[in-house]
Amino acid sequence: MEKRLSVNLQGGRHSDVYFSSSFDDLLKKTEEWGDNVFWVFDENSAKLLFSLPEKRIVLESGEIHKNISSLEAIISSALESGAARDTRFIAFGGGVILDMCALASSLYMRGARLTLIPTTLLSMVDATLGGKSAIDYKGGKNLVGTFYPADEILIEVSTLSTLPDKEFRCGMGEVIKHAFLSSSTELFGFLEANKDAIEKRDRSTLETLVLMSLEVKKEFLEKDPLETKGIRSFLNLGHTFAHALESMEGYSVSHGEAVAWGLGRAIEASSGLGLVSQSFSTSSLNLLRSYGYDVDYRIGKDQWEAFLQAMRKDKKKSNGVVNFVLLKGFGEPLLMPLEDDFVSSLTVSP
Amino acid sequence: MEKRLSVNLQGGRHSDVYFSSSFDDLLKKTEEWGDNVFWVFDENSAKLLFSLPEKRIVLESGEIHKNISSLEAIISSALESGAARDTRFIAFGGGVILDMCALASSLYMRGARLTLIPTTLLSMVDATLGGKSAIDYKGGKNLVGTFYPADEILIEVSTLSTLPDKEFRCGMGEVIKHAFLSSSTELFGFLEANKDAIEKRDRSTLETLVLMSLEVKKEFLEKDPLETKGIRSFLNLGHTFAHALESMEGYSVSHGEAVAWGLGRAIEASSGLGLVSQSFSTSSLNLLRSYGYDVDYRIGKDQWEAFLQAMRKDKKKSNGVVNFVLLKGFGEPLLMPLEDDFVSSLTVSP
Repeated sequence: MEKRLSVNLQGGRHSDVYFSSSFDDLLKKTEEWGDNVFWVFDENSAKLLFSLPEKRIVLESGEIHKNISSLEAIISSALESGAARDTRFIAFGGGVILDMCALASSLYMRGARLTLIPTTLLSMVDATLGGKSAIDYKGGKNLVGTFYPADEILIEVSTLSTLPDKEFRCGMGEVIKHAFLSSSTELFGFLEANKDAIEKRDRSTLETLVLMSLEVKKEFLEKDPLETKGIRSFLNLGHTFAHALESMEGYSVSHGEAVAWGLGRAIEASSGLGLVSQSFSTSSLNLLRSYGYDVDYRIGKDQWEAFLQAMRKDKKKSNGVVNFVLLKGFGEPLLMPLEDDFVSSLTVSP
Repeated sequence: MEKRLSVNLQGGRHSDVYFSSSFDDLLKKTEEWGDNVFWVFDENSAKLLFSLPEKRIVLESGEIHKNISSLEAIISSALESGAARDTRFIAFGGGVILDMCALASSLYMRGARLTLIPTTLLSMVDATLGGKSAIDYKGGKNLVGTFYPADEILIEVSTLSTLPDKEFRCGMGEVIKHAFLSSSTELFGFLEANKDAIEKRDRSTLETLVLMSLEVKKEFLEKDPLETKGIRSFLNLGHTFAHALESMEGYSVSHGEAVAWGLGRAIEASSGLGLVSQSFSTSSLNLLRSYGYDVDYRIGKDQWEAFLQAMRKDKKKSNGVVNFVLLKGFGEPLLMPLEDDFVSSLTVSP
């Protein structure tokens, strides 16, 4: 187990990111903490272990269960297991489990310890770092949550070897987003050059990919840990479009697919406004397409009103106006409102 | 409206405490924020206003409603009112309302703005400063909560003029606690010298009382905003006993009465262990008695097991052992475990 990254977050808290050399190496690390732990799994992630620890809860899988009932189930179960404030909540699973366990841990006696073990690519590069915990609420994605950085994030990329292709592409959406947000073109180049090794899930290629992606995220987080300065919200590139799509479709679209689609929309918007060149837009959309994303998808005319309503629930509002993250180039995001007609031209089938 | 105190808390956040010169002065301050607000009242506090603001929720009064249903009601109602992340949640009421509104505000889109307007003495000196938000959960008092400092705390002591005596004595319990925790004997002396003016609710006497009390609290908070260093937990002097009593009695005992009783127990424990002199103990207990507290109350023998179980749920546990805050003298708290037999000798009727 090797510490590869340390990220300073709010109030002097920091998250350490460890990469393990094998699944056994990962488990050995968690055994160091003895019995004062409480594990949170979902049905899928629980299958990755031969035997489950005693103090645990196994929740049903899926975004639909990212709700207040599951949150209560975690807290109640932790309480029954005798958890105290110094107990370590260990989330083992994808983003839904990580977000919910982090929220439960942040609320439990006003904050227990927290370790995240992401088992999907999306959660490795997205849900782990930055301390965003959440559940969905009344149609609002991640509407209820806290900022609560994990003490440790443990990454074991072999958990990705059995990940369905669809799930893997989900995570790649966020990785590509990080490539656009990086001021260096290194990650973009890595993605163009290593597509085969990535899709074959080559262990060391994936480790590099995850680490590079987290390094980009770290840059934005440390400048704006509580999302109060407008810097951290740049990490939402593509997400206003994506969340509206997810919300409108009743969450049937996977987050990563929605993000990739949203990235496409944000790049087209940036290009349409002359912020980036046509060639930047073309190569960016082509990278997304090469990884299998349907960036050319458009919603139906009859869905526009629902899409607009969903978009207006976006958290990046100030004085009632929704702001979109656009790009002026690699690592040059900016925040601005867009006219409804312009958004419609980018999202609705003609 | 005058800013009288500013307290630095975690992550560079700070709470400003304002004292208003009249009820009108208070309302004028809140009008500055325009329409981007969401008010939280309970049935009692709502009566203090001639007309209620449009964007509001009025919850039922009482600790029994400090639960997850009320929390959900606040969040849902805020959502319906169109609240965004930059909306200011304004809590107007006693500790229950303040704690719940603070929790809702901390969770809403991962943190909306927060103003606390305490209308009881207890909430002025206890629930406002320090960022502790909470609801009760499954018999555990304040088991679910966050650290989330209010942006502003507005104090208008005329709200105390109609406060029932019982409620007023509740708040005095915490004030007296602060007198014990202050390294100066100024507050203790003020309480001995101004009992009549305090009980007559003289406006300027109460302002001094509240301000002095908050100044003591500020000292502990700034040294340990997240209660990680053991310093802030000194503010729980008397509370391990108090919470167990409250929990055991199904919350029928008021918080302040329970705290005063707990203070008595903590002082007797300190005296029993030779940490403070007999005369310190006598004058301290006499001050509590002079303000009408039943510090000589003892639980029945048949209640001991329930009391012990309730005490073991205390949050100030490390490695499974409950720690009590005791005193070595004014402003000299310390944290230590106590034997069950010793606790029983202090709490159970012989």
